Amino acid sequence: MITVHTWTTPNGRKVPIMLEELGWKYEVKPVNLNKKQQFAPEFLVISPNNKIPAIVDHDAEGGPLSVFESGAILTYLAEKSGQFLATSGHARYRALEWLHWQVGSLGPMLGQLGYFALRARESSPDAVERFTEEADRLLQVMERRLSIGEMPYLAGDDYTIADIAAYPWMMAAATMMEELLGSTWDEVPAVQQWLERVGNRPAVQRGMRVLSE
Amino acid sequence: MITVHTWTTPNGRKVPIMLEELGWKYEVKPVNLNKKQQFAPEFLVISPNNKIPAIVDHDAEGGPLSVFESGAILTYLAEKSGQFLATSGHARYRALEWLHWQVGSLGPMLGQLGYFALRARESSPDAVERFTEEADRLLQVMERRLSIGEMPYLAGDDYTIADIAAYPWMMAAATMMEELLGSTWDEVPAVQQWLERVGNRPAVQRGMRVLSE
Repeated sequence: MITVHTWTTPNGRKVPIMLEELGWKYEVKPVNLNKKQQFAPEFLVISPNNKIPAIVDHDAEGGPLSVFESGAILTYLAEKSGQFLATSGHARYRALEWLHWQVGSLGPMLGQLGYFALRARESSPDAVERFTEEADRLLQVMERRLSIGEMPYLAGDDYTIADIAAYPWMMAAATMMEELLGSTWDEVPAVQQWLERVGNRPAVQRGMRVLSE
Repeated sequence: MITVHTWTTPNGRKVPIMLEELGWKYEVKPVNLNKKQQFAPEFLVISPNNKIPAIVDHDAEGGPLSVFESGAILTYLAEKSGQFLATSGHARYRALEWLHWQVGSLGPMLGQLGYFALRARESSPDAVERFTEEADRLLQVMERRLSIGEMPYLAGDDYTIADIAAYPWMMAAATMMEELLGSTWDEVPAVQQWLERVGNRPAVQRGMRVLSE
């Protein structure tokens, strides 16, 4: 059994999607960010950065294991299951580089755009402009990746943890942020097709609904 | 032989440090960010996000392999060499979670602090305040991690790719950003001891000097 401490944010969706894909039994412990539950001392023990998601795998090799950081959790679950990440060779590092691209660029930049555009637009127009430009650039990077060679998924032919990591963020971009990103959204048809392709997976649909019903 | 496309930034230091630790032969191709060489079409082929570092391993399993994203490159080199990352068990995921913490939080937040504090302080005081607070918070997270249980390294007893990833960013914080971080820097003695411990390694010293002499 795996316990998932999470909430209804893009980062919080990744782990439920992965566990739904695996078909593994898990329980969800909500960490309500509106109530600042991420700062509770008992949560800090398993998530020293005070962020969701975090997991506890009660049946891990070597005894119960807690893992924080969504990218590390996806890697852990992929390696435990042998699924959604090749165990060696070029395909493995194609997936890991696009996973790190999501973790290090797409997530932080869309996150900052959301913050400044929605909460500090008046006081920080330069920051809004900076993160809008960076978000647009990142969408173009993904468009180029998917359209050159008509790749169905970020790592190539196979659906991997890189897609699972990027999907909730791209959904946030597609819904809440459509107006912020302006005309660029229409200029990324391959990203839109990828969103539909990934979004049609029943496990993804189930994972996206966790804590929202 | 491995070709490293890099520059003298914190992210650009990580891969030379790792290769110096491994004692592997490599060549450095400078990508001068001041001349915007990261946007050259030939660099885009190996680094689709137009960022350094990127590598080409001419002797990879299955033929020459390019990898971008510093976190993915460190993981690749650790897995190829069998060093600085446990192959399984709790120790492996302790290292990967702190690697992802650097990639997803420490790097992006210090990077944004640097940008706004040094280039847009007048026009964006709210952004400077936001990223100063976040940088302070992240320093405290690392201090807590190292001081509780007197951990010598981020993942615990062993020096790993998590330390290699965090070191150049913490050095940037310690030097260029000391005044920005204010009193907090003095409040993190365990981080300072870790900086000294890691910085005393000859391979780290050699890696930090690449392209700077």
